[in-house]
Amino acid sequence: MDVDMLLSELTLQEKAALVIGKDFWHTRDVERLGLPSIMVSDGPHGMRTQLHVDVETNVGGSEPATCFPTASNVHAGWDREMVRRVGEAIAEEARALGVGVVLGPGVNIKRSPLCGRNFEYISEDPYLAGEMGLALVQGIQSRGVGTSLKHFAANNQETDRIRMSSDVDERTLREIYLPAFERIVTAAQPWTVMCSYNKINGVWASQNHWLLTEVLRDEWGFDGLVVSDWGAVADRVAAVKAGLDLEMPPALDHSELAVEAAVESGELTMQELDACVRRVLELVAKAEASTGSAIGGAGSAIGGAGSVTVDFDAHHALAREAAAQGIVLLENDGVLPLSPQARIGVIGEFARTTRFQGGGSSQVNATRVTSALEALTETYGEVPFAPGFTVEGADEALAREAVELARGVEVPIVFIGLTDAEESEGFDRTHMDLAPHQVDLVTQVSAVNPRTVVVLSNGSVVSMAEWKDAPAAILEAWLGGQAVGGAVVDVLTGKVNPSGRLNETIPIRLEDNPSYGNFPSHEGHARYGEGIMVGYRGYDARKLDVLYPFGHGLSYTSFAWSGLRVETAGSVAGGDLAARVRLTVTNTGERAGADVVQVYVRDVAGEAQRPVRELKGFTKVFLEPGESRTVELALDQRAFSFWSQVTNGWEVEAGEFVIEACRNAREVVLEQSLQVEAPRIGLPLSMSSTAAEWLADEQLMERVIARWGDDAGRPPGLFGNEEMMTLVGNFPMDRLLFFPGNPFSYAELEEVLGEVSAQSPAPAGS
Amino acid sequence: MDVDMLLSELTLQEKAALVIGKDFWHTRDVERLGLPSIMVSDGPHGMRTQLHVDVETNVGGSEPATCFPTASNVHAGWDREMVRRVGEAIAEEARALGVGVVLGPGVNIKRSPLCGRNFEYISEDPYLAGEMGLALVQGIQSRGVGTSLKHFAANNQETDRIRMSSDVDERTLREIYLPAFERIVTAAQPWTVMCSYNKINGVWASQNHWLLTEVLRDEWGFDGLVVSDWGAVADRVAAVKAGLDLEMPPALDHSELAVEAAVESGELTMQELDACVRRVLELVAKAEASTGSAIGGAGSAIGGAGSVTVDFDAHHALAREAAAQGIVLLENDGVLPLSPQARIGVIGEFARTTRFQGGGSSQVNATRVTSALEALTETYGEVPFAPGFTVEGADEALAREAVELARGVEVPIVFIGLTDAEESEGFDRTHMDLAPHQVDLVTQVSAVNPRTVVVLSNGSVVSMAEWKDAPAAILEAWLGGQAVGGAVVDVLTGKVNPSGRLNETIPIRLEDNPSYGNFPSHEGHARYGEGIMVGYRGYDARKLDVLYPFGHGLSYTSFAWSGLRVETAGSVAGGDLAARVRLTVTNTGERAGADVVQVYVRDVAGEAQRPVRELKGFTKVFLEPGESRTVELALDQRAFSFWSQVTNGWEVEAGEFVIEACRNAREVVLEQSLQVEAPRIGLPLSMSSTAAEWLADEQLMERVIARWGDDAGRPPGLFGNEEMMTLVGNFPMDRLLFFPGNPFSYAELEEVLGEVSAQSPAPAGS
Repeated sequence: MDVDMLLSELTLQEKAALVIGKDFWHTRDVERLGLPSIMVSDGPHGMRTQLHVDVETNVGGSEPATCFPTASNVHAGWDREMVRRVGEAIAEEARALGVGVVLGPGVNIKRSPLCGRNFEYISEDPYLAGEMGLALVQGIQSRGVGTSLKHFAANNQETDRIRMSSDVDERTLREIYLPAFERIVTAAQPWTVMCSYNKINGVWASQNHWLLTEVLRDEWGFDGLVVSDWGAVADRVAAVKAGLDLEMPPALDHSELAVEAAVESGELTMQELDACVRRVLELVAKAEASTGSAIGGAGSAIGGAGSVTVDFDAHHALAREAAAQGIVLLENDGVLPLSPQARIGVIGEFARTTRFQGGGSSQVNATRVTSALEALTETYGEVPFAPGFTVEGADEALAREAVELARGVEVPIVFIGLTDAEESEGFDRTHMDLAPHQVDLVTQVSAVNPRTVVVLSNGSVVSMAEWKDAPAAILEAWLGGQAVGGAVVDVLTGKVNPSGRLNETIPIRLEDNPSYGNFPSHEGHARYGEGIMVGYRGYDARKLDVLYPFGHGLSYTSFAWSGLRVETAGSVAGGDLAARVRLTVTNTGERAGADVVQVYVRDVAGEAQRPVRELKGFTKVFLEPGESRTVELALDQRAFSFWSQVTNGWEVEAGEFVIEACRNAREVVLEQSLQVEAPRIGLPLSMSSTAAEWLADEQLMERVIARWGDDAGRPPGLFGNEEMMTLVGNFPMDRLLFFPGNPFSYAELEEVLGEVSAQSPAPAGS
Repeated sequence: MDVDMLLSELTLQEKAALVIGKDFWHTRDVERLGLPSIMVSDGPHGMRTQLHVDVETNVGGSEPATCFPTASNVHAGWDREMVRRVGEAIAEEARALGVGVVLGPGVNIKRSPLCGRNFEYISEDPYLAGEMGLALVQGIQSRGVGTSLKHFAANNQETDRIRMSSDVDERTLREIYLPAFERIVTAAQPWTVMCSYNKINGVWASQNHWLLTEVLRDEWGFDGLVVSDWGAVADRVAAVKAGLDLEMPPALDHSELAVEAAVESGELTMQELDACVRRVLELVAKAEASTGSAIGGAGSAIGGAGSVTVDFDAHHALAREAAAQGIVLLENDGVLPLSPQARIGVIGEFARTTRFQGGGSSQVNATRVTSALEALTETYGEVPFAPGFTVEGADEALAREAVELARGVEVPIVFIGLTDAEESEGFDRTHMDLAPHQVDLVTQVSAVNPRTVVVLSNGSVVSMAEWKDAPAAILEAWLGGQAVGGAVVDVLTGKVNPSGRLNETIPIRLEDNPSYGNFPSHEGHARYGEGIMVGYRGYDARKLDVLYPFGHGLSYTSFAWSGLRVETAGSVAGGDLAARVRLTVTNTGERAGADVVQVYVRDVAGEAQRPVRELKGFTKVFLEPGESRTVELALDQRAFSFWSQVTNGWEVEAGEFVIEACRNAREVVLEQSLQVEAPRIGLPLSMSSTAAEWLADEQLMERVIARWGDDAGRPPGLFGNEEMMTLVGNFPMDRLLFFPGNPFSYAELEEVLGEVSAQSPAPAGS
């Protein structure tokens, strides 16, 4: 496909049409030029492909596909390789369905446990979100299918999601809400990036030139296409100018005519429009080149599946394997793993009616669903079961029956969680609690049987402080996809040794969450008042106890860590500071299993406000009993940096850093201190530098004293008056010089400054 | 003085000169026109008048004056009448010194306990700050001396105080940081308002047209002069345009020449300059009219005190009376009041070296200082004294000696607090703790003598969680002015029954404070991330326990409250909703004393984010033993309102409110529910209203169904699809209509909307 030629032959009308979709799922084709259409399709954990769109409902009616674990589960495995394999499998299904671009992953930060779409997002931590999202993008794109990295950006709630503005300062954007996007764009060039619905500081993401062009393309070098989230475009012309290439779904006529008129009136230049058209053409070309068979002539993709065939059995098995990796063992007093002879009892409707995915655009028409009850029956034969409650709610008789069952078995396993009605795309939760009847069930069952095991199914964390000490063990299975029932059984029985780790903190109380009070928006504005102190950073900053820290997760075996060594290379000045972190992990228990080494960086001496510690590296290592392995992680300069709003860039402060090898954000196992040398951060001294800053500059003060000091060499005027410096040392010189007692004039101070500046180079970052 | 005539005769050069001070403390005179100069002088709790300015130091060298209790103490009395009397006395001293305008009060909100200038500010609550500040302004101005209401606005820290920007949303400004100014301006017209140093959302207060003109003059009707805080002007021309009338101290030449040049170039119009000149002339005229004798011909005010004579003995006595009202009894197990025969021992250097005011521009050259040690000696005769520590710090020998002293007496009284070096204008504290040697002293003394009494002297709250349970009683005396020593003894002995109440919460940990993490600024920006949840509002919102709640204070007698009645009059629609709150207070103890009735309003049913409760009325009532009195408080419409960022105005939500009569912010004694009727708040339905909002509007849906509904009268398209409405009900109609499944076009929906709008009036607030 010759993009340049096509571009030169397209009419204005065709161009205006091309930057807008053809229908809900397709780009436009141009028959006269042989330009085909390509199909895009939800979503991040499996295909929701509507080959025969039911325009009346348009959520249902998608083709059968494997529902892999949702992000809540699969990324809790902290296992890049597993996620990459899931990505490859999703790509295969996409190709089989003739889909050119999969609309995912979502890498928005879990700012609050209440966000209705958290189950589709990866973490409260930007580094983890970036690493895991990258693995999925690499997995999908390695098979010639595109991804859409979404939702760009600062889209962290469902409430009023289109009209609200995320009011957030740039440092917070740069350190928390953008890094996952930045990491994936720079490392993997997703074919597309999807802009979000919300405004950022009052400007819609779809019309945000700073975001879509200056940051995404100019800074990060993104060379793909920006597509709107479905319905995210308010003003198509403004969006073209901002760098939004493709509007979906098409506001046919409305947007097309506006674009045509804007070009004709000169409001929009042909160059601006061509930039978007070119990217649409390039995307089609890319899709055509890699999945030629799936996209034939114009319109042929609609209804026509590709030639790839999918092994759904293998994908179901993969979904099971992946889900098991993402299950987090929160508590275990030794009741787990279950022995093959255990006399278990199964309690809770969710053991039968599996909660495995969330509502909304990511909802997959699963090829099959294995419930935990089925999987347990496979393993243990017929097992006693009491639903305890219905999906709709409490039922006293069922609860009583369940408690009775619990009395008579060795280990009751209680399946609880959130219902579809409680969490979904489209709205946010208003509290973090499980339904009271479920909590009652757990406490009552635990009261009659101390060996109770709880299995949770929920897309984002739930309150547990009230009941967590009642049962003997707790498994967090999240929304684990269509094979989660089998995965849960694999973990319960020890067939799989649990190795999942929390990718969000479980607080004691919702009120402890850093975004509490500022989440969600009020009157169209969400104040990101906690700034960079999101998730564990916030709990740490306020020294709050948490129920389970970020990164927590137990195993059936034990691991010892030793021999931490940190070596640095490069320098801050050279922009290539890096550290190599090595340590040895030994499986000291009697079962094979995987451990996750989490490396956090802690700025000890810096003056900038920094989180107590920040995750900057992790690796998962599988070890046989007694086996040791030395793992190595790399930290780059960014791992030490913060975003300075003064220098408008990433900066490293000189002084001590501590590299911490942690089991979770609250448990440092090994640590090593590092001294980093770096130039002073900030702008060069000027007339608007404070008196205290002048006083601290030796070179400058030498000259000031030489010119105005007394014979004893004391600083002149206010500089020499300690009491006054305490009071007004924070005044800029261009204010203070007018105060009484100073022998120098504005012009004279400028002169001195000029002499010194001419001699000494400006500090870094200026 | 004929202002119009003067204005017409002034040259451009004279005008440019007049909007800039003559020196540190005087306005310009114009000899040829007989225009005199007037003098202004710090400060809020006594005169710091420099008749003979020492230009080398300019903090010291002021004339002797009465140092009344600082704001930290005097406003903790919650006693408007007492503050008014203090204001009258300050005005007398000002007149005697020839001062036309007293530079105070400071009504900035105590956003963090760490603000170095908190001792000059009134409260964490805007209503209390407004009421108490008003009393001071009224007191001073009733004697013909002007005030300067400062620092306008959002000036809540000392760190980087000139360059930093307070980044704060408008609702927070309107509800927290501006109301004290608004209340005082509208009720008392202070002669001047002093703009603050900081920026507000990036714009210097001195150059902030929205603040100084739109809000202050146009909305609130301020008719006085705006003066810069000393050195607050960055760009004199921009400041004139914004409505900053008088620059202090003068950046002579620099500012004058800039103003002249700007008028000549047309950048500044003569009208803009004249507006400022006129207000300077009006201020001089006002001062001349009221204190004629103090300001004679040009320049005569300098060095020449007025003809008024001051009774410094009487003012010292008043300072003692006022300070006693502001002392807060935090704890008392019955050890207080002391009997006249008590064998007391005095411990702590602060009993001898009195901490009575703070450092900086408010520092008064006190006429005399009575230490607590002197006052105790007056009452008890010679008393044993052990300093325990020095002002400079710990001293083990002194501490041991103090503990020994404590063993041998009946009641040890330990005086601790913060030193001058620990809190002052010019910098913020970095922690809330007392020096460790002081805490050790308290715990050691308390350990050997359980009847220990602690007297605190500090300008803002200190950490107490660690040691508060050790002593038998704790008095918070604040920085209580030159007579605080006597006042403390009056309270210790029961000559004065304590009735002070905390005007800021004492948290358990600094980390619990709502501004924690966002205070102070970082890299020039202070994110007001806690929004309206400042002080007790924030502790309440996060359901945090506090050490002592806002409004807390004990007495030596007891009070019973009864018969709460709340009556409303007027209506929201009429803009005159008001409530009258009555209740009866009875002194049920055996000592005369004063109680403070605090009335809070609680919005129960509203949808807007509101604090749990907000102080909206208070009154102090003095009762003899057994005496009862019915008090009445008025609540106006504002007491029920919040600032809507959608309607850009004050709004009352319909539904239940509870009026709570409280002892403090955590102790509701009596409450009564109120039903308020009010129109729906918000903008009228439009194409950018959400689908859910359309669906909720019966009139509109009737027409939509009539036009596109099926025979069964069901809503058409997405409106009738419950699952879709859950997902996309929060989409504005102008986005959603392009989704498949909708039978209506943009134009058709606009048509329906037009029909309905024509029929029904827009809701209030639109």
